[in-house]
Amino acid sequence: MKLLNKLDSFRDFNIHEKQILADEIRNFLLEKVSKTGGHLASNLGIVELTISLCSSFDFKKDKIIFDVGHQSYVYKILTNRKDKFNSLRKYKGLRGFPSCQESSYDHFETGHSSTSISAALGMARARDITNKDYNVIAVIGDGSISNGMSFEALNDLGGKKTKMIIILNDNGMSISNNVGGLSSYLTRISLNERYIKLKNKIKYALNDNVLEIYIFKILVKLKDTFKKIFIPAKYFEDLGIKYIGPIDGHDIKTLEKVLTRVKKLEDPVIIHVLTKKGKGYKLAEENPNLYHAVNPFNVTEGIINQTEKNYSNAFGEALLQLAKKDSKIVAITAAMDKGTGLTSFSKQYKNRFFDVGIAEEHALTFAAGLSKVGIKPVVAIYSSFMQRAFDQIIHDICISKASVVLALDHAGIVGSDGETHQGIFDLSYLNIVPNIIIMSPKSIKDLKPILEYALDYNGPIAIRYPKGTDYIELPSIKKIEYGKWEILKKGHNVTVIATGKMVQKAYQIIEQEQLDVTLINALFIKPIDIKLLKRYLNTNIITIEDNLINGGMGHHILLELNKLGFQNTIKILGFKDKFIEQGSIEELYQQEQLDNESILREIKKLNNDKTFTK
Amino acid sequence: MKLLNKLDSFRDFNIHEKQILADEIRNFLLEKVSKTGGHLASNLGIVELTISLCSSFDFKKDKIIFDVGHQSYVYKILTNRKDKFNSLRKYKGLRGFPSCQESSYDHFETGHSSTSISAALGMARARDITNKDYNVIAVIGDGSISNGMSFEALNDLGGKKTKMIIILNDNGMSISNNVGGLSSYLTRISLNERYIKLKNKIKYALNDNVLEIYIFKILVKLKDTFKKIFIPAKYFEDLGIKYIGPIDGHDIKTLEKVLTRVKKLEDPVIIHVLTKKGKGYKLAEENPNLYHAVNPFNVTEGIINQTEKNYSNAFGEALLQLAKKDSKIVAITAAMDKGTGLTSFSKQYKNRFFDVGIAEEHALTFAAGLSKVGIKPVVAIYSSFMQRAFDQIIHDICISKASVVLALDHAGIVGSDGETHQGIFDLSYLNIVPNIIIMSPKSIKDLKPILEYALDYNGPIAIRYPKGTDYIELPSIKKIEYGKWEILKKGHNVTVIATGKMVQKAYQIIEQEQLDVTLINALFIKPIDIKLLKRYLNTNIITIEDNLINGGMGHHILLELNKLGFQNTIKILGFKDKFIEQGSIEELYQQEQLDNESILREIKKLNNDKTFTK
Repeated sequence: MKLLNKLDSFRDFNIHEKQILADEIRNFLLEKVSKTGGHLASNLGIVELTISLCSSFDFKKDKIIFDVGHQSYVYKILTNRKDKFNSLRKYKGLRGFPSCQESSYDHFETGHSSTSISAALGMARARDITNKDYNVIAVIGDGSISNGMSFEALNDLGGKKTKMIIILNDNGMSISNNVGGLSSYLTRISLNERYIKLKNKIKYALNDNVLEIYIFKILVKLKDTFKKIFIPAKYFEDLGIKYIGPIDGHDIKTLEKVLTRVKKLEDPVIIHVLTKKGKGYKLAEENPNLYHAVNPFNVTEGIINQTEKNYSNAFGEALLQLAKKDSKIVAITAAMDKGTGLTSFSKQYKNRFFDVGIAEEHALTFAAGLSKVGIKPVVAIYSSFMQRAFDQIIHDICISKASVVLALDHAGIVGSDGETHQGIFDLSYLNIVPNIIIMSPKSIKDLKPILEYALDYNGPIAIRYPKGTDYIELPSIKKIEYGKWEILKKGHNVTVIATGKMVQKAYQIIEQEQLDVTLINALFIKPIDIKLLKRYLNTNIITIEDNLINGGMGHHILLELNKLGFQNTIKILGFKDKFIEQGSIEELYQQEQLDNESILREIKKLNNDKTFTK
Repeated sequence: MKLLNKLDSFRDFNIHEKQILADEIRNFLLEKVSKTGGHLASNLGIVELTISLCSSFDFKKDKIIFDVGHQSYVYKILTNRKDKFNSLRKYKGLRGFPSCQESSYDHFETGHSSTSISAALGMARARDITNKDYNVIAVIGDGSISNGMSFEALNDLGGKKTKMIIILNDNGMSISNNVGGLSSYLTRISLNERYIKLKNKIKYALNDNVLEIYIFKILVKLKDTFKKIFIPAKYFEDLGIKYIGPIDGHDIKTLEKVLTRVKKLEDPVIIHVLTKKGKGYKLAEENPNLYHAVNPFNVTEGIINQTEKNYSNAFGEALLQLAKKDSKIVAITAAMDKGTGLTSFSKQYKNRFFDVGIAEEHALTFAAGLSKVGIKPVVAIYSSFMQRAFDQIIHDICISKASVVLALDHAGIVGSDGETHQGIFDLSYLNIVPNIIIMSPKSIKDLKPILEYALDYNGPIAIRYPKGTDYIELPSIKKIEYGKWEILKKGHNVTVIATGKMVQKAYQIIEQEQLDVTLINALFIKPIDIKLLKRYLNTNIITIEDNLINGGMGHHILLELNKLGFQNTIKILGFKDKFIEQGSIEELYQQEQLDNESILREIKKLNNDKTFTK
């Protein structure tokens, strides 16, 4: 690790040294990320590209935006954050995504896909109207570029020809394998035989100073002629964006030559770079999906791939079983078949499984279309990504009462991904949409009966469930009736209304402390079980949910109580009006006072309040 | 109007008769829409295309989805709804958009842009997995196809080659003029000289039976050869979708020939049709923008284009004045410069005005990018369209506290556009987003000081204001302080907290009835003025807003009161948990009990309740 300790001067390294540095960075990443967990394969793939970018630009002045952002580890290493990698993705530690608060080298926060070109275009146009002088670069993967928002930005960019550089980091897959016409098109480009032959010639030419400028002229200025014998780049050029590539993303010399020269262009340009996800770590190269986001593992042994029991897998298993009995059931995912537990389903029911790519908006309206002609679509998307299809839920599903099942995975706190990924908004944004109903299982065992109920239900229905697994085993729900809550414990004075995994927490506390209180499982968040609620008007009510207080379950229960003429306050436990940072789930519960101790304290407080027992 | 009365058999008309029918339909549309108001120019442009579609397909069985949907009037005429046009867009009348409840000929509800290809793809794939047999057609404009959601659907479609037909109805503009690279690309296609010459040849050839099949083969099967001398259609073909066109959208004979044959293709195909917006009515042809959505007007005289005093124009004027003093201010619109009152701004500050096309997601993140480097962006988008950028507000603006001003025009009831366009959700979905503040002017006069305040504010801020103009004049706000409400009337027993134009309603009622109540203007919806609220804990509180009750202002005031230990109920006036249909704004207020009489009744009820004066 000699060169890794001389990062202050890495821009002065020669190509050979930079290549050694790349190897050292890979070893560093492997060592650190295998201990902390985090995004591995995408960072291993982008080492040379990041070195080349940081060598060719000055990111004190120039702006760079990493789309999605989980591939910014190398950039963090090169911008004074190497020593913080022991705290990567930990509570109060180094962020796993770009963070303007963390470093002035980070220029825009990312986390969700496909925002980089829009944001970069904003910075580029700001530069032009204020007569400033800096370069703007968006680094985006082949998966992210196929999202609609990227297209909107490309369309705007190409229409007005703003000077800006897009690096298309093409590793032939985003999180899962890529889907869609654009993806096949990019693959066709990359596999073009004439290209491969010519690439070698160019590479040779670039080593020869005499030919160098000539070749670059061909590459950029004489594109039109060149293209015909080279590659079919018309897709981007039809949109008005110059195209260069594809270029070997592990060849620092070529990358730097191209980047340095591209700076001088006044037009928008896309540089198509081919990289290998997991590069340098054989196990990750062979199975980049498995090594995309890892928990701590042993580098020599690799990840022992055992299917853990969690909500996502239980969901996939349940849907698979239900699909056996009903051929109308189909599953839809937005580039997350593994993450949502649908891998088995995708194999077993190839023609009833639709991975639409990173395209949440399309996924939801596509589902609405399916449902209009008698199909029963289940759309599995993480809670924080479902935010991207908010209008499609309103406009295409709920206005027409389409029978679509929304499966919101990773609802609640998700932990180390931080602000951008916490699923703490879904109850709030779904609660306000007319015609939809919202359910949540109190434990994994209840997921299947609820899914079954949802598939029989006539109209839009959302099921939200958390990341990970259960704290405790609870008896399965016996019977699901529309809008009816489940009473788990009967007691006096205090009524605890909890939803989802919070029911388990409340149950634990009540058992351990032998509290004489009522515990209700609000398996329906919408509609509220008003009939049951009425029976508890003479008790102190406390609600618990792993969602924002604003607009969440408790807030809506309060509204119903207000209508019922309830003349007391209630205690609403949930998340306050702020974004929640990274950390372990339990650390964050503690910070947000949703840990068992804090919940117990609140229940006890109410238990000591004798308003109603006086 | 002879043929218009024989619509039962129009499919058997010969081409000449169909052309006469087209003229009759134009006259009918002009006569009806000039009386009721509605979408005119786009419907005049699509007459022949709709006749051809309805002649070539059977929409009892085949599915057709009109993107955006306001161009479906001709289709409604041809599918048994001609006699309902006197009630077009009126309360309980004929819908101005497709409606599955209205007719079994309508297969999917539309209203917002760019949903048609996704929904159609859902129906097409449903057909394939259930082994049914029907055609699926999406009719989409050149503006709508440039939205990201359309791209996502095209990408999915082309990747899997599902049999489906897309009609690209290209009139060279959507609502305003089109923007972006794709649009210039389409224009290049349409203006291709070689095409124009060849089009005439083809037209001639189609008249000749011998050559007919040969030409069609060229058109479809020998595309590759043909394309080279014809048109550069690679954009769509790169995505995996066959391209045919451009075709004269007013030439019924050619249209029917192409449509009939295209049915037989097993691949996805896009038919590029050129139409003239406003066709047949000279004034509309010359100024299609003005005749896009019309109020009742005199057909002979045309629309007398006088700029009315309304919130949109006042916003544009205020922004223009503020921009004079501060060169950092820029304006962003999503294909709605006229609708949001920004036409003058766009002319005066060409380089500080960005129309990004129908691309709300991109608009918001683009604004975030601008703000990160010191620019002050104001994004003006209608309330119901802002729903499409919900995640961008959370993820790109609010997490990083970007100083972006969101100007939500058409908030509240918008009237005759109905369910899809009512701006009744914004307070609810914005209230749950951390770091944003929300303001609303009580009258047009307050819009400028609030906008000025917003531009000085450091962080994300939304301003919502309604369609139309004021009921009454109210004194301007004197001073705006962060989070401080304005007391307009001081009284006893009852406290009325209203926001936006509802303040005017409350003021009118209180004046007319000489009520001894307090009236507060909640110009800040978020944050709530808790300090002021505390002073009124011993009164009966009623809140009034033109937003959903669920998640709206009153609901959040209730939450604050609950925290303050307020042991009474409050009355929350707003919209119930359902979608609101079309009608005049006042009819809908009445239906939703937000008319003056209903509000008065509620205030009186509370005034008679002496809980606090006992």
